[in-house]
Parts: sequence; C-alpha cells; structure tokens
Amino acid sequence: MRISKTLTLAAGLLTVLACASAAEKSPAYSKVDLAAADKLRERALADPSAYQLITSLTTEVGPRPAGSAGDKAAVSWALREMQRLGFANVRSVEVAVPHWVRGEAEFAVITPWPQSMPTLALGGSVGTPAEGIEGEVLMVKDLEALKALPAGAVKDRIVFFSNRMERTRDGSGYGRAVTVRVAGPSAAAGLGAQGVVIRSISTSDERFAHTGALRYAADVSRIPAVAISNPDADALVRQFETGKSVRVRIRSSSRDLAPARSANVIGEIPGTDRSSEIVILGAHLDSWDPGVGAIDDGAGVAIMMTVAKLIGELDQNPRRTIRVVLFANEEFGTSGSMAYVEALQGEADRHVLGFEADFGAGPVWRLSSRVNPAQLPAIDQIFRALGPLKLVRGENEAGGGADLEGLAKLGMPILEPGLDGTRYFDVHHTANDTLAKVDPAALRQAVAAFAVSVWLGAQFPGDWERAKTPLPSRR
Amino acid sequence: MRISKTLTLAAGLLTVLACASAAEKSPAYSKVDLAAADKLRERALADPSAYQLITSLTTEVGPRPAGSAGDKAAVSWALREMQRLGFANVRSVEVAVPHWVRGEAEFAVITPWPQSMPTLALGGSVGTPAEGIEGEVLMVKDLEALKALPAGAVKDRIVFFSNRMERTRDGSGYGRAVTVRVAGPSAAAGLGAQGVVIRSISTSDERFAHTGALRYAADVSRIPAVAISNPDADALVRQFETGKSVRVRIRSSSRDLAPARSANVIGEIPGTDRSSEIVILGAHLDSWDPGVGAIDDGAGVAIMMTVAKLIGELDQNPRRTIRVVLFANEEFGTSGSMAYVEALQGEADRHVLGFEADFGAGPVWRLSSRVNPAQLPAIDQIFRALGPLKLVRGENEAGGGADLEGLAKLGMPILEPGLDGTRYFDVHHTANDTLAKVDPAALRQAVAAFAVSVWLGAQFPGDWERAKTPLPSRR
Repeated sequence: MRISKTLTLAAGLLTVLACASAAEKSPAYSKVDLAAADKLRERALADPSAYQLITSLTTEVGPRPAGSAGDKAAVSWALREMQRLGFANVRSVEVAVPHWVRGEAEFAVITPWPQSMPTLALGGSVGTPAEGIEGEVLMVKDLEALKALPAGAVKDRIVFFSNRMERTRDGSGYGRAVTVRVAGPSAAAGLGAQGVVIRSISTSDERFAHTGALRYAADVSRIPAVAISNPDADALVRQFETGKSVRVRIRSSSRDLAPARSANVIGEIPGTDRSSEIVILGAHLDSWDPGVGAIDDGAGVAIMMTVAKLIGELDQNPRRTIRVVLFANEEFGTSGSMAYVEALQGEADRHVLGFEADFGAGPVWRLSSRVNPAQLPAIDQIFRALGPLKLVRGENEAGGGADLEGLAKLGMPILEPGLDGTRYFDVHHTANDTLAKVDPAALRQAVAAFAVSVWLGAQFPGDWERAKTPLPSRR
Repeated sequence: MRISKTLTLAAGLLTVLACASAAEKSPAYSKVDLAAADKLRERALADPSAYQLITSLTTEVGPRPAGSAGDKAAVSWALREMQRLGFANVRSVEVAVPHWVRGEAEFAVITPWPQSMPTLALGGSVGTPAEGIEGEVLMVKDLEALKALPAGAVKDRIVFFSNRMERTRDGSGYGRAVTVRVAGPSAAAGLGAQGVVIRSISTSDERFAHTGALRYAADVSRIPAVAISNPDADALVRQFETGKSVRVRIRSSSRDLAPARSANVIGEIPGTDRSSEIVILGAHLDSWDPGVGAIDDGAGVAIMMTVAKLIGELDQNPRRTIRVVLFANEEFGTSGSMAYVEALQGEADRHVLGFEADFGAGPVWRLSSRVNPAQLPAIDQIFRALGPLKLVRGENEAGGGADLEGLAKLGMPILEPGLDGTRYFDVHHTANDTLAKVDPAALRQAVAAFAVSVWLGAQFPGDWERAKTPLPSRR
C-alpha cells in the first residue's frame, strides 16, 4: 500500500510538472472556434433531432441483432438518414457477422416449490435438448466461489451464480459483475456442470431477465446458460433457505445459424485544411433482440448523428474530417469495429481522436480522456467550453468503449464525455429497452456535451499526438 | 350544475344536523379498548408477520389462478398458516370455479413496420386458430369512440383501444379506463370485428402487458382479445402516423377447461359477549398467473391474517367475532364471495361490519366508510384513534371491494382503511407483481391502520345498524 501510494504521488507530481510545462506551449483555440462551440452547445440543447432519430430507429426497425432482418433494415435506415442529414461520403462497408438466434427459453423450479420464472438465454448459448435439462442446483456467488469448491461438487449440477451487481454512475459495477456471464458457463462446464443460470447483470427490481454475450472456452464442452431477473433470483435464493435440494429444468431452443452479412455505415462532415485527419465518432447500429435498442445503442447512434449534423450546419466546416461510424454487431463480438481496424492498412494514424457513445441516453456528467499528457491543457480548454453543462473533470484514463478498443490500442487518443450510467443497467439488454426510457432533455444535454467536445477536437490548433499509454489489451 | 350544487349543500346540512344529534347519543369507547387500540397500532408497526406471509405465499405457492395447481397449493398454504397463527374454526369451504388457461400469445405488427410485441391474452379470451388471425387495425380511443363510428367501419378489423389510464390515488383512473377490457371485446364483435388489442390498463412505462377479466356478451360471437404494454401501445400509435394501413397478427392458445374446485379459507378470532356478530375481513387467495400475486392480493391476505393474529394476541378477546375469509377466485368472476353470500341462509345480518384489503401493500392514507349515518360519530372516534398514522377522513360512500360487494348490497356496513393506489397499477395484473414491489414499512403501516379499525369495529359499544344506503348494484 505504502509503496503504491508513493509511486502515485510521484506520478502525480510528474504530471503536474509536465502539464505546467505543456500549458506554456499548448496552442489556444481561436475566439471564432470557441464562439462556434457556444453556438453548438445552445443549438444542441434546443434540437429535437436525436430524440427523433431514436424514435424513428426503434419504431421503424426495432430489434436488430446481428444477422437478423432487423439488422439489414437498420443498415438501410442508417444510409437513408445519413443522406437525409446531408452527410458526405455516405457508405456501407460489408462485415461478416455471426448469426445466433434466441428461440424460446423456459426456466422452472421443480423442487422444493414448483414455479416457472421468465428467462432469457445468454447470447451465444447452445440450446438444450427439446425436453430440456434438469438437475440439482448448486448456488455460488461468483467465479471465485465456484473455483473454491472441492473437486466433484459441481459435477452434473446446474450452477446458479447469485451475485447482484452494484449500481454505479460509471458502470464499474457492471464490469465487476459481468464476468459470471462471460466466463461462468465455461468455468462451470470445466468442472462438470450441465448448465448455468445467472442472476441478471442488472440493477433493476423490475421482472426482466437480461441477456448479453457469453464466451465459451475452446477446451470444454458448451453447456446451456440462461439468466433470470433480480426478483426471480431472490425467489430462487429463498428456495435454498429450506435446506432442501433445489432442482430446476431449463429448456432453450437457441442455436447458431450460418454466418451472415451486415455492414458498418459511415458518413462524414469533410474537413478543410486538415481534412486527412479523422475525428471518429463511434456508436453501434445493432441491438440485442428482446428490446428495441433505444438506450443500447439507439441513443449513441442518435447522439453521434446529431452531433455531426449540428457541426455540418455551422457556417464554417471543421478543420479535421468528422467521421461517424455506426458499427455492425458490437453486442456479439464487435465484428464491425474489428473489421474496420483490419481494413485500415496503415491509415490508423489518420484517426487522430476518437469518441464513442454506447452508454445510454444521457446526461453527460464527466469529461475524461486518454491523450498524450502533453495535451492535457487542450482538454482543459475543452472542459472550460463545456462549463454551462456542469460536468466534472475525469482522469486521463478513459477506456473509450468496446468499438474504439482496437483503435485505442493503436494509440489513438480518446476524449470521453461520460454518459451517466446510474440507471443504465436498469434496462440494458432487456425487453424493457424501449423509447420510454429516453428522457429527451437528458439526451439533448448529452448531444450538447458531445458536440462541443467533438467540434473543439476537430479544431484543435496543434497536432493530436498519439496517446503515450495506449489502452491495455483487455482480452 | 346549480341544481346539483344546491342539493349537495342541502344534503350536507342534513348530514351535519344528523351527526350533531347522533353524536349526543353515540356511545363512547372504553379507555381499555382505546388503550388496546394504541397497543395494537404500536405492535403492528413493529411486526414483520405480514411481509413474512407475502414472502411465504409468493415463494412457496407463486401464481394461483382459479383452477390451477397453484390455486390448490394456496388453499393448503392458507389452512396451514391459519392453524399456525392460532386462529379458531379454521376451515375451507369448497367453491366451484371456472378454469381458463392462458397458453401462449403472440402479437406482431406486419405492416408498415414489422415488429413483435410482448402480449398477454385477456382473462377469459378465446384463443385464435393455430395460425393466428391477421387483419387491418382500427385504432379508437375507447368504447364511446367505437360506438360513434359509421356502420361497417369495424367489420373484419382488429380493434385497438388506445386510451391510457390516468394515475390516481384512489383507483378511480382504473375504473374509468377498464371498461375497454371488460366490455370492449364484445362491443367490437357486435360491430363485426375479428379481434381486439387493448393498451394495458396500467400506469407504468415498463414493458409489461397486463391481463384481467373480459366479459363476453351472450349475444355476439366471442373474439380473441389481448393487451400490449404502454410503450408498445405508443409504438403502435406511431405506426399509424405514417397514414399507411397497419396490419397485425395475433396468435393465442388460451382456452377454457372444465370447471374446477377451489375453496374459501376461513379462520376466526372468537368474540365474547357479542360473539354471534361477525366482523368480516376479506381478501382473495387467488391471483393472476403472469406474476406471483404479491400486491394482488398476497398483500391483502397478509394484512388480514396479521390483523387477526395481533388481535388474537391481546390480553382480551374481542367482543365480536373476527372472521378472516380468504376468498377463492376474485379475479375471474368473484366465485368465492358469491358462493359465500349464497350459503348464508339468513345469516347475512350477523355480518355487522366488513373490511376488505385488495388494493396493494400500503400505506393506508384515508379512512372511508359506508355506515348508517347515525353511526358516523363512531367512525370519528376510530379516526381519532388512528391519529398517529396520519390518515385523511374520507366520505361515507366507500365501495368496499369486489369480494364484499354481495354483503354490502345486503346492507352490511363497510369500514375502509384506504390503501394508497398511486403506484398500484404500475404492477397490477402483470408479470411484475413480485415481492420486490412490497415496501415492508408501508405494509406495516397498513396493518396498523387495519388493526386499529378492525379492533374498534369489533369493540363498538353500540349496535352496528345496517347501512341506510346499501351499495348500489354495479353489474
């Protein structure tokens, strides 16, 4: 602890010194650019476009998981809307995507007290035989508790991960809790389990099961995995309080189909004197299937399209090119962003700054970054321009989002207007992700925060140097 | 308006005069009884029994619609719990109940924008052919709007009732809105419609469809009827904004089975010098099937059982007999309470005062009554004893609830600690009716309000005269 503290203090001191020295040489924004930022902010706070875009996408397309008819309809929708908004170089770039279908799922307690509970298969789960699987349930809190069990305790059981995620503003509660969904099924299978049920990675007491991708390990058998809602998980926990054997049946007809085609959809506001430099605005066009993808990620799509539209409506074009990329299949393997990075062929460095919106419909509460420390004074200037939106200043350790991970690992600087995730996981990946969960005022505030940040990112009078601490690999 | 106002003023004046004269001769409660009321109130505010009972009923039994295995399990549960709590004369009285089963239902928009929406069949709805029914949708606000349409406009259509219910504390918004569910299917069928979909009679923006009984008219064909949630109804309304024809498909496998057997479950705290007089506490043991019946009506069951338990634990027995009746099948035709009244055989007048709890898990906010006006001073005394619970004084026009309707029509006085319904219709008759929706503190407050009222009702030093304005017939 002490050593770590000393190192942190030393690093802090170095940062202060570096910043003080950088501030002297950091070029300042022109009054014209700052005035345009003010104008953008005020226009964004009054502009209904983002809410209209989410309304349109969720009503006309609805659910759009990778490979589905909705996925194709979403690509058409995005091309049409980008054209309508006057973006340049509007195009779709084909991407191969996996095509998993949910089918139907049932979850029923057999003993001690029979009761059915609504359930959803985890994304990518194999199905069960038609008659389902039945077995005694082994309840464990999380992966650590599972691994601490004696050999043989898991054999033929259905493992129930009972841990409840914590509500946080920055989503860190999700990061800590989601491991049982991603790695739980294979961890349990490796110990001989025949199936897995998880408490949904959700902060809500509404009775919605959540879904989301699992990741099977290559070296163990693939077992079915489903989720139940928080109130049902509580009820299942109570069944254990009898001390009697708890047996359940799981039935699921989920399955993989042949890979399908989807597309990244791209549109631009062309730059002027630095047009070869790209400020990339990422969001994802796909959604999970139980809901209509209003907050995940209709909101991100709408925020980024509206930001580009508002900048395109200014009297002056941006110095750098603003590129909106609506990625295919973020949810089930980030196929779109991986294909985007693979196709770069040496053009990675042209991506000088990245933004991603994939954390709900606002408001924005914080400005974080991952830039070369020499350029923190520029971030300070942007933060000041955001003043009336009342953000807090975050650290220089932003993660971006899943779709910018590839570019961030290559050193692309990230600027992150942080969307408030306090209630995001109440509806994330559930049937309850509908337009009703979008607050138009919070959404407009988010558009304003992104618009100012993106604009000043595009107008930065210096060079955006590569981040000195590229995003560490997470996989 | 003027005439009505004058009459109201005159009636008010007469009431004041009647009360003033009655107050002089209304017998006062003894200090011992009032002290016991205080004790009951304080004990109730600290007693966890009601929450434990809801927990037990929803966990061990869960859904319990008339005729189901859960219905039978609920009867066994209630007998066991009444015995455990030390009630006297615990018994079940068999009741014939209809046996409708939900099966599965699907609702899908076909044009202009294909999208599936979660749905529930209305209680009692006939099913569709296996392939479903498909047709153009006619959107109308309510029954009045339907009836105003020109002849032929409804023929072969699927009628969508789009009206949204209003949130109120006393449930009046439900009363106004529910007519489309009860009478809408036959009204539409009478005009030639092939099916009905309603916006759920719900105040929630969570994506839960609600259910509840419809009532088919004898003289028109029975057509399938389903409900969709508020966010889906909003999305369906938006499909109409294109001006294009909206076509939907409905599929439902709901059907009637042969009538089944259920039971009213009864237990008593025996009275002393007036033991032949019954103060009846009604709630219903059945629930709809999508949820686990925590607020409807696990809460009422728990409140009434806990009130009787607390009174049974006092040093003195009540003067009048307190009879808890957990009625069978309130939801789908009030079979239990109708059978109870039919079996009275001249004993109706022994039921001197009635209480019903079928409006959620509290808190109680108001004390209303339907008693002989001569006895309003007694209600005033009870209201004063409730003082620390901070209720408001309601009118002498209480309706009781559905299960006391038969007795109230026979002139039985009603005392109504009014449960706060502000959020009740957020979860009522949906899959979301779970234990998570019960606030233990609000529930304890409700038990306290009922306990004081029931106790003083049982100790009233005078005679409970029959109500002069029996409940008017509502059917």
